[in-house]
Amino acid sequence: MIVVMKQSCNEESIQHVLSVLGRHGLTGHPSIGVERTVIGVLGAVGPSGTPGGIGGINPALGETLESLPCVDSVLRVSKPYKLASREFHPENTVVEVPAACVSDGVVAIGGSALVMMAGPCTVETEKQLMTTAEAVRKEGAVILRGGAFKPSTSPYGFRGLGEAGLKLLAKARDEFGMAIITEVMTPSDVPMVCEYADILQIGTRNMQNYMLLDEVGRTQKPAVLKRGMSATFEEWLLAAEYILAQGNRNVILCERGVRTFEKQTRNTMDISAIPLIKQLSHLPIISDPSQGTGRRDLVGPMTLASVAAGTDGLLIEVHPNPDEALKDGAQSLLIEQFRDLMPQTRAVAAAIGRSFVTE
Amino acid sequence: MIVVMKQSCNEESIQHVLSVLGRHGLTGHPSIGVERTVIGVLGAVGPSGTPGGIGGINPALGETLESLPCVDSVLRVSKPYKLASREFHPENTVVEVPAACVSDGVVAIGGSALVMMAGPCTVETEKQLMTTAEAVRKEGAVILRGGAFKPSTSPYGFRGLGEAGLKLLAKARDEFGMAIITEVMTPSDVPMVCEYADILQIGTRNMQNYMLLDEVGRTQKPAVLKRGMSATFEEWLLAAEYILAQGNRNVILCERGVRTFEKQTRNTMDISAIPLIKQLSHLPIISDPSQGTGRRDLVGPMTLASVAAGTDGLLIEVHPNPDEALKDGAQSLLIEQFRDLMPQTRAVAAAIGRSFVTE
Amino acid sequence: MIVVMKQSCNEESIQHVLSVLGRHGLTGHPSIGVERTVIGVLGAVGPSGTPGGIGGINPALGETLESLPCVDSVLRVSKPYKLASREFHPENTVVEVPAACVSDGVVAIGGSALVMMAGPCTVETEKQLMTTAEAVRKEGAVILRGGAFKPSTSPYGFRGLGEAGLKLLAKARDEFGMAIITEVMTPSDVPMVCEYADILQIGTRNMQNYMLLDEVGRTQKPAVLKRGMSATFEEWLLAAEYILAQGNRNVILCERGVRTFEKQTRNTMDISAIPLIKQLSHLPIISDPSQGTGRRDLVGPMTLASVAAGTDGLLIEVHPNPDEALKDGAQSLLIEQFRDLMPQTRAVAAAIGRSFVTE
Amino acid sequence: MIVVMKQSCNEESIQHVLSVLGRHGLTGHPSIGVERTVIGVLGAVGPSGTPGGIGGINPALGETLESLPCVDSVLRVSKPYKLASREFHPENTVVEVPAACVSDGVVAIGGSALVMMAGPCTVETEKQLMTTAEAVRKEGAVILRGGAFKPSTSPYGFRGLGEAGLKLLAKARDEFGMAIITEVMTPSDVPMVCEYADILQIGTRNMQNYMLLDEVGRTQKPAVLKRGMSATFEEWLLAAEYILAQGNRNVILCERGVRTFEKQTRNTMDISAIPLIKQLSHLPIISDPSQGTGRRDLVGPMTLASVAAGTDGLLIEVHPNPDEALKDGAQSLLIEQFRDLMPQTRAVAAAIGRSFVTE
Repeated sequence: MIVVMKQSCNEESIQHVLSVLGRHGLTGHPSIGVERTVIGVLGAVGPSGTPGGIGGINPALGETLESLPCVDSVLRVSKPYKLASREFHPENTVVEVPAACVSDGVVAIGGSALVMMAGPCTVETEKQLMTTAEAVRKEGAVILRGGAFKPSTSPYGFRGLGEAGLKLLAKARDEFGMAIITEVMTPSDVPMVCEYADILQIGTRNMQNYMLLDEVGRTQKPAVLKRGMSATFEEWLLAAEYILAQGNRNVILCERGVRTFEKQTRNTMDISAIPLIKQLSHLPIISDPSQGTGRRDLVGPMTLASVAAGTDGLLIEVHPNPDEALKDGAQSLLIEQFRDLMPQTRAVAAAIGRSFVTE
Repeated sequence: MIVVMKQSCNEESIQHVLSVLGRHGLTGHPSIGVERTVIGVLGAVGPSGTPGGIGGINPALGETLESLPCVDSVLRVSKPYKLASREFHPENTVVEVPAACVSDGVVAIGGSALVMMAGPCTVETEKQLMTTAEAVRKEGAVILRGGAFKPSTSPYGFRGLGEAGLKLLAKARDEFGMAIITEVMTPSDVPMVCEYADILQIGTRNMQNYMLLDEVGRTQKPAVLKRGMSATFEEWLLAAEYILAQGNRNVILCERGVRTFEKQTRNTMDISAIPLIKQLSHLPIISDPSQGTGRRDLVGPMTLASVAAGTDGLLIEVHPNPDEALKDGAQSLLIEQFRDLMPQTRAVAAAIGRSFVTE
Repeated sequence: MIVVMKQSCNEESIQHVLSVLGRHGLTGHPSIGVERTVIGVLGAVGPSGTPGGIGGINPALGETLESLPCVDSVLRVSKPYKLASREFHPENTVVEVPAACVSDGVVAIGGSALVMMAGPCTVETEKQLMTTAEAVRKEGAVILRGGAFKPSTSPYGFRGLGEAGLKLLAKARDEFGMAIITEVMTPSDVPMVCEYADILQIGTRNMQNYMLLDEVGRTQKPAVLKRGMSATFEEWLLAAEYILAQGNRNVILCERGVRTFEKQTRNTMDISAIPLIKQLSHLPIISDPSQGTGRRDLVGPMTLASVAAGTDGLLIEVHPNPDEALKDGAQSLLIEQFRDLMPQTRAVAAAIGRSFVTE
Repeated sequence: MIVVMKQSCNEESIQHVLSVLGRHGLTGHPSIGVERTVIGVLGAVGPSGTPGGIGGINPALGETLESLPCVDSVLRVSKPYKLASREFHPENTVVEVPAACVSDGVVAIGGSALVMMAGPCTVETEKQLMTTAEAVRKEGAVILRGGAFKPSTSPYGFRGLGEAGLKLLAKARDEFGMAIITEVMTPSDVPMVCEYADILQIGTRNMQNYMLLDEVGRTQKPAVLKRGMSATFEEWLLAAEYILAQGNRNVILCERGVRTFEKQTRNTMDISAIPLIKQLSHLPIISDPSQGTGRRDLVGPMTLASVAAGTDGLLIEVHPNPDEALKDGAQSLLIEQFRDLMPQTRAVAAAIGRSFVTE
């Protein structure tokens, strides 16, 4: 941490900053420049509860210092997350998910091969789920998505079948051998959802639902953490840090678009998140072009773009009859559209030297 | 709902839209213009679960129609919220909170008089809380704020004293007669927090934590619902609708700033939310200039601006020694600053013909 | 245009709306629903100066109606741009630019083949420009970029060599046969820049510099119109409409990222703009991953993503020694990085059935 | 400037940074911490063209350093603007504008008294202008606003009367003694607009039209610089710096709202800009609640809020018959609304110890 003093600061105000630092057990090193004085607080050990190794300084302290009349600004030298950072863990994390449909029984997410996760936005009926599951498996999907608990902006919207939906997902797994990914929305549901799911999904509105993150962190279940709809990379990685800090290292990040001023798409996918998160973190990152655009006609191009930019996997909504979907039909691919998209997706993957896990 | 067809649409595509509407039990009325055909779907009755009275149309249907190749766009005629809307409930809602410090034992929020809620961001120690409570009560605050459960962006930050903090708040209520407002973060904590608090606070990150909203809606406890950090007014009122729909009509909205590109303030307070929400809704609205700016030096001007714009109350962070605060010290007023601010605040209120509830 | 009345409106207020419409020469058709009355204003002819064909209604009229106390909202049925819309002009526009380096002497932008435009951010010296031009031409670029007039956020930053820079660009064209693209910043410079450039570039800060757009519209020079840094698609297409309306049909759109809350990238590229603009408009669209990310390490992945999503061309900054660049060195590729990127880019293009114009 | 190295950096990479600094004539001071090495570059003298006094470092250099593989980030210690900063010029700047209607013939903007600027958005007819001017003068406005050159998002919208509008403004000045403020949109119009106007207005879309800023800077005419619609405070002050750097010290800033996700208001006024800009800069700041909200019904509350927060003046649109306005009628106050607003505005000003310049 570096404290930048105002030009008008005097010796007394420098001493005041040093004494505030002292009260937090820290030592400052003033360096008086022609224009400004700066006070370095390097190599500090943090207050209790903060692991010294992550830069060690209580975030509240920085803000407190910044509010002193003699201080111009406080510059942070260390990243506020540690377990999620590539500096701490240089090698890629590969998350393994059991799936009977692949030859060795395990799908690796974050390795050299890409993973296709597809299925309906929401589990509606057994027929809808089984038809979709069969179709996407045939095209190479190895993980089946489907929501049983669904966030709805309106209290009058459809909120999912609940445990009945989970049971249908489990049935589809039995039949087609795919692993199951499904959303969990509240801490008390974590144990039940863990019984049925192979991967827990934490939705964009829950990215900072800290008690849910804690609870998921206390399991060992792989978890897909979607980016909050106006979250920065740092906030997103701090949310991952919550899960990691509780001991669950099986975290997968998912770019699903951020809110911008443009209203013709539901969200604006930030494709640059894919290569940049790979620099900042060792965690796998996948893309959700269905939520990321909200428009069926953009899912194909954004799938190809995600692959070209280096995504580790895709999460795509497919529905046998989107005109009749109870939720998010507008962004669901028709089965035939998914069928047409897969060969193009494989071709783009091949162009950058990658392939898909399929069997 | 009005479906706008593409210029290139033909009779067959109009029939297709009509048949999709028909499958949802709706009737469309095409009107063929020189340039475009539009299909009106007025006075419709919604699917089961949707109260016909709110416009009646499944939100998913609009998106589904919009994704048809022949459809240009779908325009919504009705607002998606009903119980929260002023159209449905033309008179102001006044939320009553018991408080021994006022002569009739009840503080009214949303009436002609303004309400000052003040106290520390976070309950840290008995001494800190009591000192602050005494000071803010002396200046006219009738509601004491203080967090026992605190959201922290970092898993290594301070997360509050939990139930011990609630007990201290109850003690302060006994001593100073103020009502207590404190945050609840997860559904399973609602019963415990209700035991101690007079007003539940739902934080910005939880504005769309639907299960928490449901749970709070099942109590009759007054609830302050903070605006989500990038929420639109419609999303905010839909979140209020969740609570109202469960039967709890004691909802108070709180403007606390939205995220913008400006980083010199923590958030950008949207003061226009105050008069605009009063048009859209009958619910009281208060302001939080501490969270809304993140800077002590801006709390005063934004308090005065909120009052001038018609706020029903204020939520202000005050700390006896902000340099040593465990959380958000930078935005907490010193006790003497709060003391100086109150007379100015009263003067601005008087200038627009209002006063503060004080005794 | 459809005027949605408030639930509380009465016959008198409906008549008032009809009379306001009447004063603008328009006829409204009220349709009284169970819940609401709406007034359709279809097939209207606009006020003088507005081509009837674009929906025909003065934009100010919609806002005026919306401000009437009895009106809830005004819904627009037509798009506000016409010449730029695909509805008006269903076939792709292909912009032709003369370039000696290709066999038929003309580079087509917006056709089946992609176009690589590369070169330094800013023309600094003859040696810098010639070295870069030679290198990028060798790898397949057919258009040379280079700024002679540069916008700088600070008045103390480098603002380009001016006409001397244009002369160097012309010299590079003579030597390597590439067409030249360079920025023009103000209307009075348009004639001079037209003397040297084959394509005019209008920068993000000037997307709504209407007098510049008019002036460029009065030439027949191909013009690349960059997206404003927080512009919507509609605003961007309206800016293109300015140029088109003056008679210059050679407009090329360029996605270069929008501002978001994320500060680790200079901008957030909106890759979905590529397929969506292709639906809304017949104009070619290219991508600028250098400005779009501000980081050299992201230019490669975002180039590949743009190609996968269907871009018509790329605008890439390359510098022989970026550590010494006077401007934007951080986002410039090294020559060897550009050399490595081209084969990957071609491979991704081939994967979606496209190739690059090269000779 | 402080260069933060990656944890993985070695001695060689530190030497590389030092040599890049050396090539720019700068000296770095490495300081090797437990966790990280940082290199301080304090008190540096900038490259030619950059005044050493403003921190002295080429902005491009920071980005260049940041792109080196061994560098984690570059932290800036100095502000990039100087002439606009309060550190450089601690006293408030007061801009004087001649106006026959006040007793000493001069209106001071930025002093203790507030200034009301009002009038139509756009000059339409002599009658419209004179009626409005008379009415607003009667209520205490001392400066008359009115656009002769108007930016319009659509090329088919009304763009103002041009010089004929300026002549009408001059006539209104002769008749009512108010000073005139009007917009200038392009450098070549500056001399003509200066002939008629007492204050030049630079609109939000032109905040970064650098050649216009330069040209206005070469006059001595007072200039109101509106905030760009998604500009940060720093970008805004850098735009002011352009004008100041050319020698024109009569710059007035104007908060007019920024773009946010909320679409029910045209913009979101950032009232906190008023007190914060007063800390960062010595320049006067005024508020435009008409553009800032786009809604007549919000202009009153936002006027009062601006005054309470400490604005130096107001810019308000008033129209004798807004339903028939050619532009922005929806945000124009009726004359009687303006008449009602003024006493409330004075009352709020009085509550914070200020008054209005009126005679």
